[in-house]
Amino acid sequence: MIRVGVIGATGYAGAELVRILYGHVEVDITVITSRQYAGAPFDQIYPAFAGVVDLVCEEFSADAVADRADVVFTALPHKLPMEIIPGLVERGLRVVDLSADFRFRDPALYEAAYQPHTARDLLKQSAYGLSEVYADAVRTAPVVGNPGCYPTSVLLPLIPLLKAGLIDPKTLVADAKSGVSGAGRSPSVGSLFCEVAESFKAYKVGVHRHNPEMNEVLSREYGKPVRITFVPHLAPMSRGMLSTLYAGLTRSATPEKIRACLTDYYRGRPFVRIHPEGRMPDTRFVRSTNYCDIGFTVNEADRRVILLSAIDNLVKGAAGQAVQNMNLMFDLDETTGLDAMPAPL
Amino acid sequence: MIRVGVIGATGYAGAELVRILYGHVEVDITVITSRQYAGAPFDQIYPAFAGVVDLVCEEFSADAVADRADVVFTALPHKLPMEIIPGLVERGLRVVDLSADFRFRDPALYEAAYQPHTARDLLKQSAYGLSEVYADAVRTAPVVGNPGCYPTSVLLPLIPLLKAGLIDPKTLVADAKSGVSGAGRSPSVGSLFCEVAESFKAYKVGVHRHNPEMNEVLSREYGKPVRITFVPHLAPMSRGMLSTLYAGLTRSATPEKIRACLTDYYRGRPFVRIHPEGRMPDTRFVRSTNYCDIGFTVNEADRRVILLSAIDNLVKGAAGQAVQNMNLMFDLDETTGLDAMPAPL
Amino acid sequence: MIRVGVIGATGYAGAELVRILYGHVEVDITVITSRQYAGAPFDQIYPAFAGVVDLVCEEFSADAVADRADVVFTALPHKLPMEIIPGLVERGLRVVDLSADFRFRDPALYEAAYQPHTARDLLKQSAYGLSEVYADAVRTAPVVGNPGCYPTSVLLPLIPLLKAGLIDPKTLVADAKSGVSGAGRSPSVGSLFCEVAESFKAYKVGVHRHNPEMNEVLSREYGKPVRITFVPHLAPMSRGMLSTLYAGLTRSATPEKIRACLTDYYRGRPFVRIHPEGRMPDTRFVRSTNYCDIGFTVNEADRRVILLSAIDNLVKGAAGQAVQNMNLMFDLDETTGLDAMPAPL
Amino acid sequence: MIRVGVIGATGYAGAELVRILYGHVEVDITVITSRQYAGAPFDQIYPAFAGVVDLVCEEFSADAVADRADVVFTALPHKLPMEIIPGLVERGLRVVDLSADFRFRDPALYEAAYQPHTARDLLKQSAYGLSEVYADAVRTAPVVGNPGCYPTSVLLPLIPLLKAGLIDPKTLVADAKSGVSGAGRSPSVGSLFCEVAESFKAYKVGVHRHNPEMNEVLSREYGKPVRITFVPHLAPMSRGMLSTLYAGLTRSATPEKIRACLTDYYRGRPFVRIHPEGRMPDTRFVRSTNYCDIGFTVNEADRRVILLSAIDNLVKGAAGQAVQNMNLMFDLDETTGLDAMPAPL
Repeated sequence: MIRVGVIGATGYAGAELVRILYGHVEVDITVITSRQYAGAPFDQIYPAFAGVVDLVCEEFSADAVADRADVVFTALPHKLPMEIIPGLVERGLRVVDLSADFRFRDPALYEAAYQPHTARDLLKQSAYGLSEVYADAVRTAPVVGNPGCYPTSVLLPLIPLLKAGLIDPKTLVADAKSGVSGAGRSPSVGSLFCEVAESFKAYKVGVHRHNPEMNEVLSREYGKPVRITFVPHLAPMSRGMLSTLYAGLTRSATPEKIRACLTDYYRGRPFVRIHPEGRMPDTRFVRSTNYCDIGFTVNEADRRVILLSAIDNLVKGAAGQAVQNMNLMFDLDETTGLDAMPAPL
Repeated sequence: MIRVGVIGATGYAGAELVRILYGHVEVDITVITSRQYAGAPFDQIYPAFAGVVDLVCEEFSADAVADRADVVFTALPHKLPMEIIPGLVERGLRVVDLSADFRFRDPALYEAAYQPHTARDLLKQSAYGLSEVYADAVRTAPVVGNPGCYPTSVLLPLIPLLKAGLIDPKTLVADAKSGVSGAGRSPSVGSLFCEVAESFKAYKVGVHRHNPEMNEVLSREYGKPVRITFVPHLAPMSRGMLSTLYAGLTRSATPEKIRACLTDYYRGRPFVRIHPEGRMPDTRFVRSTNYCDIGFTVNEADRRVILLSAIDNLVKGAAGQAVQNMNLMFDLDETTGLDAMPAPL
Repeated sequence: MIRVGVIGATGYAGAELVRILYGHVEVDITVITSRQYAGAPFDQIYPAFAGVVDLVCEEFSADAVADRADVVFTALPHKLPMEIIPGLVERGLRVVDLSADFRFRDPALYEAAYQPHTARDLLKQSAYGLSEVYADAVRTAPVVGNPGCYPTSVLLPLIPLLKAGLIDPKTLVADAKSGVSGAGRSPSVGSLFCEVAESFKAYKVGVHRHNPEMNEVLSREYGKPVRITFVPHLAPMSRGMLSTLYAGLTRSATPEKIRACLTDYYRGRPFVRIHPEGRMPDTRFVRSTNYCDIGFTVNEADRRVILLSAIDNLVKGAAGQAVQNMNLMFDLDETTGLDAMPAPL
Repeated sequence: MIRVGVIGATGYAGAELVRILYGHVEVDITVITSRQYAGAPFDQIYPAFAGVVDLVCEEFSADAVADRADVVFTALPHKLPMEIIPGLVERGLRVVDLSADFRFRDPALYEAAYQPHTARDLLKQSAYGLSEVYADAVRTAPVVGNPGCYPTSVLLPLIPLLKAGLIDPKTLVADAKSGVSGAGRSPSVGSLFCEVAESFKAYKVGVHRHNPEMNEVLSREYGKPVRITFVPHLAPMSRGMLSTLYAGLTRSATPEKIRACLTDYYRGRPFVRIHPEGRMPDTRFVRSTNYCDIGFTVNEADRRVILLSAIDNLVKGAAGQAVQNMNLMFDLDETTGLDAMPAPL
């Protein structure tokens, strides 16, 4: 059994990690930490787990974690991970980090969006954990920077078409809608039920930090600088993310080529479901699963393709993809622990 | 007092008409009709109105309506209005129609999207009831074709910029999100609570009938054919519509010019609120009001503007704008009956 | 015009006060205060009011308020009101307090549930603002203790039947369900969208402070001590409160007598709507209104009556009843400012 | 492997059966039927199952089902099951019926609430599938009448206390709140998103058909006739049921005895979780699980106990308990297929 630690287990992403890892037959959760709830049984914070999960939150200590775990998931606000992960790697652990700290290849991009990077050496060795695209790098990396939820939902549909030259990199628009859990469990007025219900709005238009993350990956895949226009929105629901992607077609693109390109790229990848014509992705269809559902429509008159992707922002957009990456790192079947049945509602 | 009839009073738009007109100091509702609920007191169908509204639904009869009303609102599925409105106009009534039947100038466009048009003569005399843009035509028209909810939310932000030459008509994208009330009160699986909650999805991508409606108006205002890419989405909320609009800037456009253009165009128009920088429209802020809130951000690097507009799909997107049009038709202050206080939540 | 101040204007109850008072034709809001948002325009905190309300939040100062207002609404956490209201009354103001500080006749009951009472003299002169029951006292009191939302919804159906001897005071049970706005606008984990959606639960079972408030009023009306079993629940909605009340019938009670008793008691009281048989109260039917809808069913086999009452917790349960009380205090028609149309949804 | 059929697989309870049985390691779903969707792939109706479930809906035929299944779940409107189940039993199948047709021991009670019973002989041999109470009868019965959702949530907390003489059978009140999925997937105005959101109401007060079902079981367990006052409510959520139960204490009852009674009765029963003091059941904590969470508070002054129980109406209230019963019938571990991890939100 692989021994696993979850650092920051009481936020929404951390709790999802516990949920998934507890049902994972190849791992044992040996340690969970929480600054705020150190000493508290996990099921006191999340009573859904009463009688199921008997873990107790601890204060973080690198030595204690290294003693008891082979791999660690860090679900912390950015900045903290780059402070503690180097010490964990030195002690021989492998790490999947759910923050932004190990997502960028170019530290300058990270620093423009966040703050000075204090673990540049380790950053160089890290892999970007978009599992379907960078599986090889993930398998061997000491640290995996788990992608943001928005980048996951935007990049999976676009990368194959961009690489195949079917869409024009100068025309990309991503209009993305997220459930409220993306804002985390810290209390804030903007996440209150009464502020969110019957509310739909865009936020951080033009300044969201997931935008440079997308741009770097798109540029890397395309081989030349690509910039996407990205607008995130908040929808009155708990979980789920739908991205609507607009792209101009290149001369050679046809609906058939687009379908073939997506189907070929994701052949054998169990978590990407290309919808048949006429079926449109819906966040409800992927709720609590690790799927990314992709559908599209071509507007031939205007030479544009409209792609839709749906994920659960906490699963494929966070904890699920993190476990998928761990599976890759430990040569397990990619779906281990991630094959719970979807629900009809 | 102006005597008013509401034909089709028991759907959501019809009920909103009753709500607004009942609080309108210059009108008396003298007749409401409903095929399904003929004979039933209105407050039996909508008990919120118990002790307030004492109207009883009747079967529609052109003669009976003409006897008792000066102006009629038709809130019926398309096709029915063009069958009954000519008879009402002949009897001297003025009509605001909330269906698509009198929205198009070119009957061929209507027929391509709907069915053969059987009242082409009257269509020629009708006005498109986008109140802020076509007030003059509305004032004198026998029939006003009240705009669709999506076109209202998309056209109000775009028309000023398009006319001013600040945006490139070949680059227009409208990503629109609607509450469920837009689907009406007829029972269907897709509008059930359990199907909508925790669900976000696009629908009718590339084939929604509001798209040709938008195209015709944009083309008319621009003076040359314009086509917009339009994707409607369903959000898990009852009321409200947010449209996110993407447009390429022309060479001369600057953020200042865009703000000035919108501010000038809507100066003195009480229902369009141009948000100051940094405040983004939110459907919650316009709930149950006739406002259209507009905000925008310019991405100068990519020479694109992102506009956001929020309306209540049942008010500015239907019943409220219909009453606004009636106010124009009867030389009343535009805001009469539409000045109820907004609510904080 | 009556000059009005709202102390604590930026919480949900305060904002509802602003909404209602702004639309009230006999008053001018001359001052609003907020510790947290002093200096901020009100529409910056609640952008729904942009272009409508141009008030700016101030720090509270008794002198400044007394200079500019005739009556003051205090929408503050308990304890603060009893510190500042005596000074306002000395300066000649009348006050409607929305906290618990002036709700009890017996200070010992207050002190058992809250903390030491520091304005006992003024408490003696205050009236309990259950408008339909204590209108006479409200008219002349210097301070009105506006009832809690739960007591309002529980007392209105029970008082007439208890006084008429139709129900047995030893059998009373109140199972009450509230929307989340009752928890206020202060950020807390329990009020987050993700914690409330798909959640239904009881809270503070047996220890909610509204229970002694109900008990005191029931006892006062019955003439002997009465205790009600009260369980509050949290429902996944923003506004609204439904109370389901169970009471054993006395020997003489019949369904007809119950209906007659309620109807007689509330004859001429515009905000209490006794539903006809077969129509059950629904929070949606009273949303944003000052109505209390009451329905009931008699189970003759078990000699029990089941009463249902629906209010909007922020209106009849807080700001609306507060304005109703002010109307009584200033000899205005009870409905002034409170007659906005209800909405179908 | 046990071969299983699901008759009526496309309603919400049917779809939950498919979800649970598909993940059940001891069974194969060999046939699913649907009148409305015969011929359609199951994942066309519930796209969440795309790539997971490859079943196709068929028309029902007793012979075809008997050929391919050992046990059948019928998830049909009442009346249909008693028409087809006798034929299935004759063909050697065992049946778990989710309708009311095989829930009553006394056919007269069934007939008073529903319609003439046409399979009285089989009814005599059937067991009431409240798994924790009637496991022995379930194990051997040819047909199990799976309990209603409301009875499940009401009976589990009350039966132990009633049998132990700790509560007074003449004082029982059940105030129950259900999510909307309990109304099924058939389109009706009352289940539309816009009618349910921000709505809380009681329905069928005093006439709900689950009331006689509860009464019969309570009477059977108590040994004398018991009647409970039952009021069902509809809450604005998809799944979940919370029941708040009020009962007068008998002379001997103490909080300690109540806790011991519940704990003893459910010792070793994995799906009933007795909450420790101070933790209150919440529908969110049991969402998509087969748990019944029970908590309570004693009001000693009034000699009353308030019990709270939370279940997922579609799982422990329908499909989950049905599978639990099948496990009992086939001597499998009770939890097989029902041990999916709960979710934090």
